[in-house]
Amino acid sequence: MSVTAAKGYLASGLHAGIKKSGKPDLALIVSARLASAAGVFTVNRFRAAPVGICQERLRASGGRARAILATSGSANAMTGEAGRRDAIELSRVAAQELRVEEHHVLVASTGAIGTRIRLSLESAKKAIHIASGNMGCTANSGLAAARAIMTTDTRAKQAVARFCDGATKFAVGGMAKGVGMVAPKMATVLVFVTTDAEVSPQKLQAALIGAVGPTLNSISVDGQMSTNDTCIILANGAASTRPLSSSGYGKFAVALKEVLGSLSRQLVSDGEGATRLIEVAVRGARTPAEARMAVRAVGDSMLVKTAIYGRQANWGRIAQALGACEELHFIPERVSVKVGGYAAIRGGLLVPVSSAIQRALNAGLVRIEIDLKAGRHIAEVLTCDLTEGYIKENAGYLS
Amino acid sequence: MSVTAAKGYLASGLHAGIKKSGKPDLALIVSARLASAAGVFTVNRFRAAPVGICQERLRASGGRARAILATSGSANAMTGEAGRRDAIELSRVAAQELRVEEHHVLVASTGAIGTRIRLSLESAKKAIHIASGNMGCTANSGLAAARAIMTTDTRAKQAVARFCDGATKFAVGGMAKGVGMVAPKMATVLVFVTTDAEVSPQKLQAALIGAVGPTLNSISVDGQMSTNDTCIILANGAASTRPLSSSGYGKFAVALKEVLGSLSRQLVSDGEGATRLIEVAVRGARTPAEARMAVRAVGDSMLVKTAIYGRQANWGRIAQALGACEELHFIPERVSVKVGGYAAIRGGLLVPVSSAIQRALNAGLVRIEIDLKAGRHIAEVLTCDLTEGYIKENAGYLS
Repeated sequence: MSVTAAKGYLASGLHAGIKKSGKPDLALIVSARLASAAGVFTVNRFRAAPVGICQERLRASGGRARAILATSGSANAMTGEAGRRDAIELSRVAAQELRVEEHHVLVASTGAIGTRIRLSLESAKKAIHIASGNMGCTANSGLAAARAIMTTDTRAKQAVARFCDGATKFAVGGMAKGVGMVAPKMATVLVFVTTDAEVSPQKLQAALIGAVGPTLNSISVDGQMSTNDTCIILANGAASTRPLSSSGYGKFAVALKEVLGSLSRQLVSDGEGATRLIEVAVRGARTPAEARMAVRAVGDSMLVKTAIYGRQANWGRIAQALGACEELHFIPERVSVKVGGYAAIRGGLLVPVSSAIQRALNAGLVRIEIDLKAGRHIAEVLTCDLTEGYIKENAGYLS
Repeated sequence: MSVTAAKGYLASGLHAGIKKSGKPDLALIVSARLASAAGVFTVNRFRAAPVGICQERLRASGGRARAILATSGSANAMTGEAGRRDAIELSRVAAQELRVEEHHVLVASTGAIGTRIRLSLESAKKAIHIASGNMGCTANSGLAAARAIMTTDTRAKQAVARFCDGATKFAVGGMAKGVGMVAPKMATVLVFVTTDAEVSPQKLQAALIGAVGPTLNSISVDGQMSTNDTCIILANGAASTRPLSSSGYGKFAVALKEVLGSLSRQLVSDGEGATRLIEVAVRGARTPAEARMAVRAVGDSMLVKTAIYGRQANWGRIAQALGACEELHFIPERVSVKVGGYAAIRGGLLVPVSSAIQRALNAGLVRIEIDLKAGRHIAEVLTCDLTEGYIKENAGYLS
């Protein structure tokens, strides 16, 4: 149950012929009525064709959409005008099949950069016709769509939050894919969320931006930023005849954060080759930017990530990563670090490794808490360990 | 032949008892006469005790030194006052043994961060007495010293340059250790260079800074910066009775760059788990800082490094790394990239993979040339691929 949890949404997924493996590669999500729509996209300058198209259409439609068409197997990035035509053509086929306006169809793609979507117009028409016929509102339909956007993901990612309190009643459901090129801002991720709450496009965009900050923008697998990152939310208001009240909107914002938070954890857990999660929390930074700099320096450090993988109490690597940030203000002799709640560095000195902290290193989630004692700002990032699995996955990805 | 190539230097290396493995862990380099001395050190805020001591002594002596004492097996970083006393004690023992001023002994350490040097005063005295007695000016003595500073290095790194033109005659020899935490500024590296040219401390420092920029500061293994990076050069003037002429100084600067360049290549070749070298060159950047930002973004990208390891013509990963630099100015549609001299990206689009470029991917050194077409500034970095070997090495380092 994910994008079909909210009322008035249909979804399906199938193999259209893009992936040579024969695995599902096309997902369709449709709202029974015109929905408010909002999106957050990659800021990579080599953004993929579908990213640009979504941004244009959301602007042109004033934040309204009916459907999302997502393909996996090709990123459709660095494909120039031809790639742009491919994406528009696909959305046109979907619009004709669903009998909706072309600019109400949002598109997204994921896969290797620089390859075009290998799908003739004939095959596309056939696949989208079948996908449209197969659409359902069951948990299985949602799962089929979630599976169809996977690349090196080992499992589908789905999350749902429901709220019901008298007249205020809604569901928020989402699906995601991730694994490599996952870093703030925006994991290399496609995320699609649907809700049956009634929310205006402007409020929907505001809620999305608020929810993405502590969730999708606070995770990292390898510090790399994809050309295709896309998070789209549709709100069709099918749950109620009235717009959300102000307090109802607050509940909705919380539910959205919950769904994106769950998907973010699932994304990092399934990071390429990851065996365990690492949570890096910084406090006492002089500015918000410095707090983010510090969590990224530690969270993206290959030495910290391999140490956690090897269950090594090698805290010097944490200090090394902090100390190397030339623009980070702190006094080394005041820094303290806890791992799993136990002191690892105190007053800039390593604390002898206890058996308790060694046990904390064996947990599925290792939390590293850093206090810079230079101010009052905080930041957090969720990442994973770096293992031989990541190397294998990425050395062989195109072969 | 390395630090003993220049006249008037003696060296030795032995197992003093710091490393549990019984491998050599103490190196001694001594100039027969008081030498000009200059150094470049880590800018990591968690700098190790010996780094601070070297900086103080070079200042106090006006850039003069007689000996370098280096140990491996413990970084002596994050060891506080106790670590500082350890380092001073060791240098005092060496000064007494060699009958030189204590502040003319420079010290350096490498190994795991946060551990103290496990050596009693008794053992230190004994070891330094033997090291002093074993000192020689042969190639074997230089090699023994180079071996005694190795940690996860698989081979000793040495380089020599000689110049002889009438009255101007000198040798420059160096040794180094590296492998992990190798990134600008300064590889995690100990580098010791000796020359018998007569150069004033001021000119020596200037030549060193000039030579470090394009060599030690332009290499990277994992984008991490050590707490111990140290490069020291001694110039004792034993080759001649006169200071270098202005043109002789130019020749000396070239020779020094040659020695540090050779050591840099050796350091990256022996990067943890590395199988091949990657040279990233950027031109057409708007500013020098942006040129450096671009080479680092590509050279430190785990996705680029694993692609080269897997011989994957996955150029989209190069674009991804560039596009993610928010502060880098360029127009994606103008960017071109060559790999091994063959076009990989042209006008922002991927060029179909030819068999020639696929062959270039099999070479021991893969050169990636990026033209941002946004200005006239250039930068280069030498790095290595990322393999399972790096993970194994770093997940198990302390075990």
